[in-house]
Amino acid sequence: MASRKLLLLPGDGIGPEIATEAQKLITVLNEATEGGFEIESGLVGGAAYDDCGEAISDTTMELAQASDAVLFGSVGGPRWDGVPYEKRPEAGLLRLRKEMGLFANLRPAICYPALADASSLKRHIIEGLDILILRELTGGVYFGEPKEIVDLGNGQKRAVDTQVYETYEIERIARAAFELARTRRGKVTSMEKRNVMKTGVFWNEVVSRVHREEFSDLTLEHELADAGGMKLVREPKQFDVIVTDNLFGDMLSDIAAMLTGSLGMLPSASLGKPDDASGRRKALYEPVHGSAPDIAGQGIANPIAMIASLAMCLRYSFAMTREAEALEAAIADTLNDGIRTGDIMAEGCRKVGTSEMGDAVAERF
Amino acid sequence: MASRKLLLLPGDGIGPEIATEAQKLITVLNEATEGGFEIESGLVGGAAYDDCGEAISDTTMELAQASDAVLFGSVGGPRWDGVPYEKRPEAGLLRLRKEMGLFANLRPAICYPALADASSLKRHIIEGLDILILRELTGGVYFGEPKEIVDLGNGQKRAVDTQVYETYEIERIARAAFELARTRRGKVTSMEKRNVMKTGVFWNEVVSRVHREEFSDLTLEHELADAGGMKLVREPKQFDVIVTDNLFGDMLSDIAAMLTGSLGMLPSASLGKPDDASGRRKALYEPVHGSAPDIAGQGIANPIAMIASLAMCLRYSFAMTREAEALEAAIADTLNDGIRTGDIMAEGCRKVGTSEMGDAVAERF
Ligand SMILES: CC(C)[C@H](C(=O)O)[C@@H](O)C(=O)O
Ligand SMILES: CC(C)[C@H](C(=O)O)[C@@H](O)C(=O)O
Repeated sequence: MASRKLLLLPGDGIGPEIATEAQKLITVLNEATEGGFEIESGLVGGAAYDDCGEAISDTTMELAQASDAVLFGSVGGPRWDGVPYEKRPEAGLLRLRKEMGLFANLRPAICYPALADASSLKRHIIEGLDILILRELTGGVYFGEPKEIVDLGNGQKRAVDTQVYETYEIERIARAAFELARTRRGKVTSMEKRNVMKTGVFWNEVVSRVHREEFSDLTLEHELADAGGMKLVREPKQFDVIVTDNLFGDMLSDIAAMLTGSLGMLPSASLGKPDDASGRRKALYEPVHGSAPDIAGQGIANPIAMIASLAMCLRYSFAMTREAEALEAAIADTLNDGIRTGDIMAEGCRKVGTSEMGDAVAERF
Repeated sequence: MASRKLLLLPGDGIGPEIATEAQKLITVLNEATEGGFEIESGLVGGAAYDDCGEAISDTTMELAQASDAVLFGSVGGPRWDGVPYEKRPEAGLLRLRKEMGLFANLRPAICYPALADASSLKRHIIEGLDILILRELTGGVYFGEPKEIVDLGNGQKRAVDTQVYETYEIERIARAAFELARTRRGKVTSMEKRNVMKTGVFWNEVVSRVHREEFSDLTLEHELADAGGMKLVREPKQFDVIVTDNLFGDMLSDIAAMLTGSLGMLPSASLGKPDDASGRRKALYEPVHGSAPDIAGQGIANPIAMIASLAMCLRYSFAMTREAEALEAAIADTLNDGIRTGDIMAEGCRKVGTSEMGDAVAERF
């Protein structure tokens, strides 16, 4: 069995604690299956800045490029608020996304039955929810130039960000959306602000053309991003796959995650384009939640989103569908058995810390 | 009593129907008080385009500039999907906002007690909700240049939008936020994406300085817009005034409106800077909801957001606080009496149409 190279980048805040639990599961995988996973580790975010003055070093970038998949924890925290913009913790994550070409960010918003009551929404609105937000991840306002603050010399400054999309960027994310929808319920909802933004007009046009020319057997709907956000809050189950740009995707996927009441549970996958020769695609897997500096280092963080990110890694990077499903089932079983970290604690359940939660999932795997 | 000049711009979809109900209330106001309101009407949006080929004519713009306040219905609909970008219905609204200098958009998200169960959120999460989203309305990505789609000549096109903010634009909206917070619970939460956008870094910096130098007795908090959106869904009552840019404000205020379960109920005010000499500020009042083309012309639309926009007009343009409160009380009484349009219908209530709803509020005023 060929070895499988994983790069583990725990990052900041609760990142290292939850990464340890992912590592635990990888050890089990190596024992139980012929996984053959080899793990290297590196620094990213504030941790990397403290170490080498950059949010990610060139050496770590090379390791990432050479790996079969990156497992990423989380970055950022108030400690690095004063750091220059180019070196802030998030810059490490953005560099990974951009240089690895990870244009397709899959963010499933599912509601674990055992947690339906943890949502701020009424149970019947989110029970059984299973939607997928596909966010464009290497374009838009995140990377467009100019991006600057200019001194106008009259006591005034001007700050500028630029949202840019080219044809090929929208085509490839649209194709990814339709391909994913085909394995699901066959419906794609594209969201933009075509009534205000030229990138929205263009996004709408390209997605519609890709649909017409290549996927006309599937359903395509369009929503303005603000109206789409409302529908998400009102009746999220009407969606299947939502495809949207980098910034709207950031907002909408976080809101969708929060709707489920399961923020600490939700993983994500960021995928590049398959290599022409090997078919291998660069990939990074990370929880949707952030670095939660307020609870870092206390051993109480919920590691499930990180473990579920490992499950996505098995599925999308290694086609280990059976193992991915087994890991997801182990998570669901753990929850059904009433084992909870503080963030999802409920009456009658047993409250555990990060490490016990990792153990509980490992035992059920 | 000096006359008060209102320009009524019903617009498209359900706009004309709900505008008629606002007019009904103005008639009552003129009879009951010494309001002395004079109403002129004009076309905007698709209706204006059909009439003169523009989303608003220069003549109507002049009327708007000369009025004491504009009452705006709603614009847009699939009928005008093929219209050139510069002439699309929304362009009329955007021109009004920009040329009248309406930089401060007040969007209260309140939960009417009688409607708490209409929300998709659990009752205890939204009962008693009363927050105010203050959205910057004449800057950001809505108006920045370049804003274009360019043919790159190799089968590829590139679309660009530009988000721009200058010092004075952020200063004045920040001041407006603090002044509003002072009349409320004294807390402002500023939202941006400073971890990704230079305009976010700059926004954060200017709002912080205005707070430090001019309003340090009030509380200022900062949230990343994505995290802020999540907190809004999770626990909206933690906020008082939220101040944010044009695009985030569009998304967040719609989501907040939907949380309340009272979208058809929520008004907004868009205000300019007070004139140095007269103290008068240009103003436009409009419902937060859209033109709902699917139910237009059936006499079933909910006119309450439009009537509540008139109440905001009384308060902010004419300092008629007592009358504004009486009108708001009449709305609450109508709801408490179980009178409902279809969108907010509940068991045991009486279902009425647009015109009956207007009558019901007028009777209780
Ligand atoms: C950490 C930050 C740069 C990032 C983003 O805005 O993309 C985060 O919010 C996310 O959603 O992954
Ligand atoms: C109609 C449209 C231009 C508008 C906007 O995006 O500002 C609307 O969504 C709003 O929120 O007032």
